Amino acid sequence: MVLPHFYLSIKYCKFVLIKTHNCMKTNKHKIAVLGSGSWATAIMKMLTENLDEVAWYVRSAYTMEHLKLHRHNPKYLQQVLFDLNKIKISTDINEVVAYADTIIIAIPSAFVKAELDQINIPLKNKIIFSAVKGIVPETLLILGEHLKKYHGVPEKKLGVIAGPCHAEEVAMERLSYLTIAAKRKSIAKQMSADLSSWYIKTSYSKDVFGIEWAAVLKNVFAIASGIAHGLGYGDNYQAVLISNAIREMKKFIKKNVDKRKRNIDNSAYLGDLLVTSYSIFSRNRTFGSMIGKGYTVRSAMAEMRMVAEGYYAVKSAYKINLDKGDKKANTPIIDTVYNILYKGANPKTEFIKLSDKLN
Amino acid sequence: MVLPHFYLSIKYCKFVLIKTHNCMKTNKHKIAVLGSGSWATAIMKMLTENLDEVAWYVRSAYTMEHLKLHRHNPKYLQQVLFDLNKIKISTDINEVVAYADTIIIAIPSAFVKAELDQINIPLKNKIIFSAVKGIVPETLLILGEHLKKYHGVPEKKLGVIAGPCHAEEVAMERLSYLTIAAKRKSIAKQMSADLSSWYIKTSYSKDVFGIEWAAVLKNVFAIASGIAHGLGYGDNYQAVLISNAIREMKKFIKKNVDKRKRNIDNSAYLGDLLVTSYSIFSRNRTFGSMIGKGYTVRSAMAEMRMVAEGYYAVKSAYKINLDKGDKKANTPIIDTVYNILYKGANPKTEFIKLSDKLN
Repeated sequence: MVLPHFYLSIKYCKFVLIKTHNCMKTNKHKIAVLGSGSWATAIMKMLTENLDEVAWYVRSAYTMEHLKLHRHNPKYLQQVLFDLNKIKISTDINEVVAYADTIIIAIPSAFVKAELDQINIPLKNKIIFSAVKGIVPETLLILGEHLKKYHGVPEKKLGVIAGPCHAEEVAMERLSYLTIAAKRKSIAKQMSADLSSWYIKTSYSKDVFGIEWAAVLKNVFAIASGIAHGLGYGDNYQAVLISNAIREMKKFIKKNVDKRKRNIDNSAYLGDLLVTSYSIFSRNRTFGSMIGKGYTVRSAMAEMRMVAEGYYAVKSAYKINLDKGDKKANTPIIDTVYNILYKGANPKTEFIKLSDKLN
Repeated sequence: MVLPHFYLSIKYCKFVLIKTHNCMKTNKHKIAVLGSGSWATAIMKMLTENLDEVAWYVRSAYTMEHLKLHRHNPKYLQQVLFDLNKIKISTDINEVVAYADTIIIAIPSAFVKAELDQINIPLKNKIIFSAVKGIVPETLLILGEHLKKYHGVPEKKLGVIAGPCHAEEVAMERLSYLTIAAKRKSIAKQMSADLSSWYIKTSYSKDVFGIEWAAVLKNVFAIASGIAHGLGYGDNYQAVLISNAIREMKKFIKKNVDKRKRNIDNSAYLGDLLVTSYSIFSRNRTFGSMIGKGYTVRSAMAEMRMVAEGYYAVKSAYKINLDKGDKKANTPIIDTVYNILYKGANPKTEFIKLSDKLN
């Protein structure tokens, strides 16, 4: 009996029985993750399964010490155990950035500018992937545009890691699909190789800013979905709301990013919207639901002890679209969420008006 | 103070304060509903709120007597009380068909041919709306095509009443949207007026067979969604599966109905798919989930005491598509469900193969 080739390499490759091409690599490129939330932790898990060295910037010394001592993040995805030989962990963002040629930013959007402002090394020569699903509140830009405008990173060096992907399911090694977007295919290809495994499949897209906007807008639509739920609307209505939302997303991106032909039903757009809007764990949906049930914006935020990312996203989306004047996209759902969150409009009345615009 | 006009008619119109155009009508057209399931009962509720006379064919004498005595369907949507002065109820299908010029068929697809075969009055001069969300098992046709082929009903007299719409939410008067499809707008317009109310909004479409196919295919995709759930796939995967499903639906309808430009993200297509695939109450999803958990097809059907409509739908969809030969649409999800339900293929293995085809 002749053994197939992959049996021979079984000692050297953790995943050999499932995917022979995912053998552990001695990575020549220097890759780093910034952030220590659940999504950053999930990305670290994916990377360290494929690569033998990954740098990790975590803000808190406690998180770093806990990781070194217990091999897991103290706050998020605690079941994920890291091989300490593979991670170069630091609380010094400049040390991590200096090390890396490829950086994945997975810091919650509310804190991303403050962290980036600490970096005193030019970013323009790095390959930078956004795994931030929100707007930079201070500049009202998606991260890719913020990096381009304020850090001089050229578009050809920017990428996006997009879902649909709950970090919790990555931790559970449930089959998930990522879309890796970058103008240059070679950059995306490397990132795909670094992240793929028997439970992570990847697709490629060139639509960097379109996909980043989709990831941002889905949080606005998840807030809308939550408000509807909080107001007592049912499943029939939710299905109509989301089918209107995906059409609104398409129109928004077409008017505010570019007119390229994109299939909005691809997983990075529609799939990501679905996983967020139909998840009872979505923070944006929960925030919306509280608003629908009568909480004020301030009390909902206080209760949740955090700001849902869609809160900033809707302000940015509304204003960017408004700036288009006569050429703006027709975005009744975005406008409704904006009116409720920023103009103090009554959710019940706004949704009655919105309902007449849906079909 | 001058009272607005609608105040004057308040005595005569139940919904005047909400929608002035939905006054009770003395309907000149003779309308009938065939069927006594939950969807038929929901349609009867919508119609009798607008019209003063609606005929209703129910198969069982017990159901008829119960309705006459207690004013509600004994089995479905029991909270819906009917005004007996408005319904002409009969267990004689020919009596009801003879009465009507417009017929809504809302009989489960498994029984629809047997019921239609009892009709000895020509149907070709009637306006007929399908509210059947399945394939006629004996002919493997959608109802519209079955009526055209076997009852000589011309396409211009055919219509479809499409969701997304759980009957239970109609009973609860939760805001829902219907799409009324008919080649002739006047026919759809009349049906819209008959069904609309403060909690039912309607849209119009010309895509009669496309929308009927969407209502049929969604049940196949709901079975797929259930199988995935039963096999232990998570929310990330479901979102990818459904985003692939809507693309597959578009391709199938384009190849097997016609090539007209249709926005597959409209509520009648995507919305209907969402409300079914994400509902834990969907019988098709439940059936699929049992298959995924290891039940045989026969034991799952026995346990459910019914045949999920997607079971026939997938056979028809698979065969119709196969008949296109080289021109067939690429339908990996439909093929997977067909292989599992009709060829005894192993769900786990089939889904591993399917997963490589999704993106």
